[in-house]
Amino acid sequence: MANSIGEQFRVTSFGESHGPAIGVVIDGIPAGIEVDEKFIQSMLEKRKPGQSAITTQRKEDDFFEIVSGVFEGKSTGAPICFIILNLDQQSKDYSALKNIYRPGHADYTYQKKYGIRDYNGGGRSSARITAGWVAAGALAMLYLKKVSNIQIEAIVSSVYNIALPKPYDQYNWGSIENPVRCPDKVTAEKMEALIEEMKQTKDSVGGTIACRILNTPVGLGEPVFNKLNADLAHAMLNINAVKGIQFGSGFESAQLKGSENNDTIDGNTNHDGGITGGISNGRPIEFELAFKPASSIGRPQNMLNTDGSIESINIEGRHDPCVLPRAIAIVEAMAAIVTADHFMRNLKFVQ
Amino acid sequence: MANSIGEQFRVTSFGESHGPAIGVVIDGIPAGIEVDEKFIQSMLEKRKPGQSAITTQRKEDDFFEIVSGVFEGKSTGAPICFIILNLDQQSKDYSALKNIYRPGHADYTYQKKYGIRDYNGGGRSSARITAGWVAAGALAMLYLKKVSNIQIEAIVSSVYNIALPKPYDQYNWGSIENPVRCPDKVTAEKMEALIEEMKQTKDSVGGTIACRILNTPVGLGEPVFNKLNADLAHAMLNINAVKGIQFGSGFESAQLKGSENNDTIDGNTNHDGGITGGISNGRPIEFELAFKPASSIGRPQNMLNTDGSIESINIEGRHDPCVLPRAIAIVEAMAAIVTADHFMRNLKFVQ
Amino acid sequence: MANSIGEQFRVTSFGESHGPAIGVVIDGIPAGIEVDEKFIQSMLEKRKPGQSAITTQRKEDDFFEIVSGVFEGKSTGAPICFIILNLDQQSKDYSALKNIYRPGHADYTYQKKYGIRDYNGGGRSSARITAGWVAAGALAMLYLKKVSNIQIEAIVSSVYNIALPKPYDQYNWGSIENPVRCPDKVTAEKMEALIEEMKQTKDSVGGTIACRILNTPVGLGEPVFNKLNADLAHAMLNINAVKGIQFGSGFESAQLKGSENNDTIDGNTNHDGGITGGISNGRPIEFELAFKPASSIGRPQNMLNTDGSIESINIEGRHDPCVLPRAIAIVEAMAAIVTADHFMRNLKFVQ
Amino acid sequence: MANSIGEQFRVTSFGESHGPAIGVVIDGIPAGIEVDEKFIQSMLEKRKPGQSAITTQRKEDDFFEIVSGVFEGKSTGAPICFIILNLDQQSKDYSALKNIYRPGHADYTYQKKYGIRDYNGGGRSSARITAGWVAAGALAMLYLKKVSNIQIEAIVSSVYNIALPKPYDQYNWGSIENPVRCPDKVTAEKMEALIEEMKQTKDSVGGTIACRILNTPVGLGEPVFNKLNADLAHAMLNINAVKGIQFGSGFESAQLKGSENNDTIDGNTNHDGGITGGISNGRPIEFELAFKPASSIGRPQNMLNTDGSIESINIEGRHDPCVLPRAIAIVEAMAAIVTADHFMRNLKFVQ
Repeated sequence: MANSIGEQFRVTSFGESHGPAIGVVIDGIPAGIEVDEKFIQSMLEKRKPGQSAITTQRKEDDFFEIVSGVFEGKSTGAPICFIILNLDQQSKDYSALKNIYRPGHADYTYQKKYGIRDYNGGGRSSARITAGWVAAGALAMLYLKKVSNIQIEAIVSSVYNIALPKPYDQYNWGSIENPVRCPDKVTAEKMEALIEEMKQTKDSVGGTIACRILNTPVGLGEPVFNKLNADLAHAMLNINAVKGIQFGSGFESAQLKGSENNDTIDGNTNHDGGITGGISNGRPIEFELAFKPASSIGRPQNMLNTDGSIESINIEGRHDPCVLPRAIAIVEAMAAIVTADHFMRNLKFVQ
Repeated sequence: MANSIGEQFRVTSFGESHGPAIGVVIDGIPAGIEVDEKFIQSMLEKRKPGQSAITTQRKEDDFFEIVSGVFEGKSTGAPICFIILNLDQQSKDYSALKNIYRPGHADYTYQKKYGIRDYNGGGRSSARITAGWVAAGALAMLYLKKVSNIQIEAIVSSVYNIALPKPYDQYNWGSIENPVRCPDKVTAEKMEALIEEMKQTKDSVGGTIACRILNTPVGLGEPVFNKLNADLAHAMLNINAVKGIQFGSGFESAQLKGSENNDTIDGNTNHDGGITGGISNGRPIEFELAFKPASSIGRPQNMLNTDGSIESINIEGRHDPCVLPRAIAIVEAMAAIVTADHFMRNLKFVQ
Repeated sequence: MANSIGEQFRVTSFGESHGPAIGVVIDGIPAGIEVDEKFIQSMLEKRKPGQSAITTQRKEDDFFEIVSGVFEGKSTGAPICFIILNLDQQSKDYSALKNIYRPGHADYTYQKKYGIRDYNGGGRSSARITAGWVAAGALAMLYLKKVSNIQIEAIVSSVYNIALPKPYDQYNWGSIENPVRCPDKVTAEKMEALIEEMKQTKDSVGGTIACRILNTPVGLGEPVFNKLNADLAHAMLNINAVKGIQFGSGFESAQLKGSENNDTIDGNTNHDGGITGGISNGRPIEFELAFKPASSIGRPQNMLNTDGSIESINIEGRHDPCVLPRAIAIVEAMAAIVTADHFMRNLKFVQ
Repeated sequence: MANSIGEQFRVTSFGESHGPAIGVVIDGIPAGIEVDEKFIQSMLEKRKPGQSAITTQRKEDDFFEIVSGVFEGKSTGAPICFIILNLDQQSKDYSALKNIYRPGHADYTYQKKYGIRDYNGGGRSSARITAGWVAAGALAMLYLKKVSNIQIEAIVSSVYNIALPKPYDQYNWGSIENPVRCPDKVTAEKMEALIEEMKQTKDSVGGTIACRILNTPVGLGEPVFNKLNADLAHAMLNINAVKGIQFGSGFESAQLKGSENNDTIDGNTNHDGGITGGISNGRPIEFELAFKPASSIGRPQNMLNTDGSIESINIEGRHDPCVLPRAIAIVEAMAAIVTADHFMRNLKFVQ
């Protein structure tokens, strides 16, 4: 179904940007998992708007509430529903967008597909929906923590033309304290300056995020049609603005010979990105994502009107000049959802 | 489930490289579709080994048989089962591979996941399995032909360091007569020479395949978790050797500003690759895939033995020096499967 | 997944009896359906406690709220989430039930399966959860009303040893004004008196509910594993206290000869209950359900304690002496969910 | 999908009565299960036609072949495909049935749903398809045998008006040597005589089958929408000719008071049929099925012609006067498929 992801750890998303609330129902979580609310909230903080000078200045507090599935702090085996109220849903008048299709946004495609569209703040297509995914991913992390040593980490590896020098594993991914979430201080500062410039010039920039999943057992992933890389790609390409993914050496591998690309036994290479034949091979799972620049920019653009005419319009608002720092939480969450799902699917093979 | 793909047009795969047969069961195909056997066979010919000097010289005839679901040449609404006999299943002795994990192959991961492994020609992990996918994809194309004008085409866009000059749409994709399946004659000849060289030097090369889906209606794709790009990525990343995918400008978009990357209304740009907010927007759907070089090469390589020791082994056999020309059929087939599935899913919204 | 039902019209349930709220997420509803809140509320009224002298005197107001998927009164194609707050969640102290397994209830099985149990009012296993199903079913009815003439009706056909005289189609099912919801006034009064007696004697009674689905097109139902009768049976057996189902002549058919049981062409018989080979045949779909008597009775019963000892306990509370009058709404709702789902699944075969 | 059943142990069925073969693909079976071919064949023998004087005298040998998923006698984790060739597919001319809708059969409903119909021997709607289910069920039994003590047994409990005296557990279900498969010799002989009479008079009779699942752990079944009873009901109602199911006391419970029906702690009663709140409670799981009499009888009947006229026709052929003895194998197989599926689903809750 359109709004669910996962087979055994299954997340169903609902809600619109400016409805009363957004949320998720998580089905398949075993009983007895401690639902650490502080941890879940901390993941939401990583994603929330207004967290630094280089993100949108919209204020959304993104407090989540547990509606079901938790009893005395632990999961019961019943579906867990998290809800995040849309506290500022009434704060803005979107009627100016009622008859306009913003470029790069889903306005036009939603209208044509459904014949009706909640135009307030993007409605169902808004990236706000991902707050629910992050809460679900945080729960997946709590599950993984309980049953494994698996660790999931993502970093901003490039912004526009500023790239973090490779290899990425020379950096400490775990304790990034800059607002860009790039692990190299010097690179991060350049990125920050660039994003600040975009804010001033009312433009936006894209970039790449690298993600790794450490300490997976050999065996996650189900050939032939639910290969771990296929399911990760599926999850990631569902994230707003993601336009590409590569595992291990990815597009570079396409320019290598077999004799160069086959990983050596000593573990010194990881061209395959930790997945062989669709199954985790015990090395770090590594992939990188391409994010297009945010489509919302504060400059006049030609836009199609619902009546077929073209208008040059400037969409006012507090836009993100670069979504990548906030998207780190979403990438980690989606990676956790897929990993938890495959961890469960793999259980029957290890009895 | 591990061996099924699609929701309403659903393909279930079975079989091993050297068992009696491989096959697929296709569920969800409406009644009344003409099952053009010649067309299906022609797609299998595009994928089959031994079709030219630059593919593996293994002979596999890949004739398919209809087991069910077709009556007097038409689909009945019952599941269609296609079977392809493994005619040369006894032709080779694979016992030398019994105790060895070939680099880049799924030998090690299967063994660790399942504790048992059909080592004959790769067993379940063999790319031979994709012959069934191609037959299913051909059926998807017949369905699409009946209900729409949708057209699916793929080309080899690079091999190793030889890249087809962009933009790709300057070429005629439809009638490629060279064995590499690259639409530019000059580039194709360079690629062919390189692949021939790999064959001589017992090495292999990777490359990229570009695919486009033309004439889709606006509206294919289901947000938020079955975005059309997410489902295409999922399908493609299930293809053996695929390590990356990008839609539209993909990783290049990551280096653009919003003011550069937003597609213009005049239709002159297609940075989004024909999909906005997860839904087809009416422009050509365009994506590109990274294939790693074939892992099987005729050179000695260090391999892990099942007893934990390391051996330098030369895997004899008739390997593909470059899988891309044959993979064209697989990419087109998987694209057709996803497109047919989403075409069906979209039906209830256009009544 | 445990908490979802349906393939194309898919309902996901969440919540516990005494948590903050219960609810449902409905995925797959097409855009443009008018979400008539009054009608949905009226279905909830049919199910709610305290509606007459012969139901439990617990007061639950069961007002539903739309969280998502509706814009200006119409469905948008996004998932619809309904929530019903548990307003009186704090009203009672259930700690006496913490260590006891009530007979006939899911206390013991939940505890053994999950190792943890929300014992407040039955938690996840409470029939209160079905309020969400009723709201989802009401939405299914609104969908069916928009796209068809299909009509769904249920009646109480027996209570304990008081049976409505057959054939049931001699009665007017549509406008039942007695609290038992049995269409024959005389029978209804006897049933009411009996239920009143049960209330006095602190016992309970079971019975049967007959349901029919009128005006279905020929063609609903998917052989071989999603026959319409199979999916209806699945839905109905998920209702608390249902222990059996029969279609058409059901268990009576088992005592007939083929020459007696085959339905005649003139339409005068309906032994098959409107479904042949798993597909609706155009005659009324008819089935009947066996409900066991409510397990909660106000008399001392021997119960197993969590420490393994046996205690004679009297569970205080305002129990339903007979659940059938309120269950009518649940049966109709589940029938509507299955019918809507199969209506959608059948669409691709009628283009 | 229409042709698949089960979530983690998933069976996909394909084939028509008179096509080249019927079969199943079983996905989700863990690696390392010994695939005992003799046992599987023995289950097929229990179902096959012509096995005794009281079944149809059609000869179908029903030998199955393993196409995939088994290596050196053991499952590999890959999907297992079984095929049963339709050896006598050419033996009969069905063209007389081309334009006629047989009463009680799916001829009319298939034609109206799909607009096309394989009329040879019932095509996809033929009970012959269940041979594949039986092979899949036999595999489920082999899995259950490996991981549990669960035992599944079914008996014929009534034929027409001849009923096996209750309680059923006074009989030895395990070693029934009469052709009716009723465990009481005297009753069996009466049934046999009746069936013989039907054969002579070219009529047919229905009846009931009782099934029990012994030694299940507490905990199988997933509330709220995949209750074990709901999934068993779903599986059973997919069997051709089944028109009803009841668990434990079933329709009798509907005529009891709560004080009579609640199961006692001592284990002396089993009104709930071993399932409480949708979860196995450790007592024997018990249910009973109503089979309508076989629709095919060798007497003239009025039938609808595809041109709308009515004809009195006598369908020649070697019909089953009573399908129940052969259906025992199907009931046991479907029970095993559901039980294996829920056994797997329950694994993550017992780690």
